[in-house]
Formats: sequence, C-alpha cells, structure tokens
Amino acid sequence: MFVLDPRLVQDTVAIGDFPLCRLLLSNDSNYPWFILVPRRPDIIELFQLEPADQLQLWQETNALAQLLSQSFNADKLNVGALGNVVSQLHMHVIVRFRNDVAWPAPVWGKSPAKPYTGEELSAIYTRMREVLTSGFRFEGDQT
Amino acid sequence: MFVLDPRLVQDTVAIGDFPLCRLLLSNDSNYPWFILVPRRPDIIELFQLEPADQLQLWQETNALAQLLSQSFNADKLNVGALGNVVSQLHMHVIVRFRNDVAWPAPVWGKSPAKPYTGEELSAIYTRMREVLTSGFRFEGDQT
Repeated sequence: MFVLDPRLVQDTVAIGDFPLCRLLLSNDSNYPWFILVPRRPDIIELFQLEPADQLQLWQETNALAQLLSQSFNADKLNVGALGNVVSQLHMHVIVRFRNDVAWPAPVWGKSPAKPYTGEELSAIYTRMREVLTSGFRFEGDQT
Repeated sequence: MFVLDPRLVQDTVAIGDFPLCRLLLSNDSNYPWFILVPRRPDIIELFQLEPADQLQLWQETNALAQLLSQSFNADKLNVGALGNVVSQLHMHVIVRFRNDVAWPAPVWGKSPAKPYTGEELSAIYTRMREVLTSGFRFEGDQT
C-alpha cells in the first residue's frame, strides 16, 4: 500500500493526484517548489517503476514543468529525483527565477525553508487547483 | 545544428552516443557522474523536446541509471536536469555512495571537482564502453 513518507508529510502540502503521482507543494515560499510522488509502494529508484509507470511519471513531470513554466513565467525549471535523505521516490519540479535566493545554485540546502503564511498557502493552493483541473486528469486532494 | 555547450566541453569527457543523447563523463572523480545531452539544437527545457525525443530521453536516462546502479553497486542514483548555469538541456545521472564527499547533499557546488588522472580516466572510459556496448544501442565517441 502506498503511504507518503513522514518527512514529505511534514514538509509539504498535498494539492491533489495525477493518474500516477500525488502532487505536493513544498512549504518553502522561497520558490514555487512542487514534488511528484508516484503512488506505488516501496519504490526508491526511477527504474524500479513498471515501464508503464516510468512513462507516466515522465509525462506528468514534463506536463507539470511546462504548465508551471507558463503559469509562473519561470526563468528556468529544475527537475530532479535525488532521494539521498527521503528514499521514497519523488520528483522535484521547481520554478526558478534569476532573482531567487539560491540562483544559480540548486535549491537544496541553500537557504532555510520559509514557510508560507496561511493566506499565501491558500492562494497558491487555489491557483494550482484551477490551473491543473483545467488542463489535466487531476483530482483534488486525497489526503 | 547540435553543438555541445563550451562549458560542458571543458568539464567533461565524451564517451559516446545513444540514439538521442551524447554521453559525457564529468571530469570529477569524487563521484561517477554522467551527463546525457540530447543532440538537438536550441533546447533548454525538457518539454521543448519533440514528444518522441522526450520519451527517448527518459528511456536513455532510466536505462543508464539502472546500468550504473548495478555496475557501481550504487547506494543511490541522483537524476536531474537543472540548467541554471549551462542552459543547454542536459540530464545528470550521478552515482552516489553514503561515503562520498557530499553525501547526503546534492553534488553541485559542494566540493571542488577532483579531475581524474589519465590512468583513471582511461579505466572508467574503457569500463563504460564495455558496459554500454554490451547492452545498448550505443556508438563510440563521435567527437
């Protein structure tokens, strides 16, 4: 059974589900930072997914990246699966700006997380739900 | 026409070509660190590739990651496309060990690059060529 890693539960807000992945928002307002987690148990590496799931993950990753790029008018998207700390497979999709606090470095470990206020969180949550449900097979928060 | 970014030329050694990507070895012996560069001109983001190329990139990425994981008995693979410094689309596929110099942090900007000696470079080049030509549609160094 798929269970979200406790560290991801702690550090993120669930926005909803794509056909394969749960979409999480990292609670760090330094960057629009999203995380896709395939809802499959016991997967650590990309290549451990079934071939159809591998394809689905890449499609959801690329589609999300493209949508975020447009919606936020991003300077760059950073996409990556690292997993050195949280081993459960998760794909970062991060909107970067040339004036963000870490640019041009990667975001990890660069600057302390700056949690969203309740108002900010509500705004980005609503915005993402509107954007995603208009163009995707996307369902609301399942958690 | 595809031309490899000068910074990638400077920091890596070309090993050969997959159907879509040039395979590069980062000249940093701190980690077995590979880079896939789609041989397409003027591509910065993953979603700018044609759909068939997107699929091919993910297949080459996953296949390379799986092969490296086995060949190096990796503790973890790190896979990511960042591009904040070098904008030409390139996918990092990095073998990580719990005792490497940056663990558990990402490798970027963590520790100064430690160039391979000629002997080390020859060894890893030969090893990769053997591994890749045995299981892949892979052609020798085109550069």
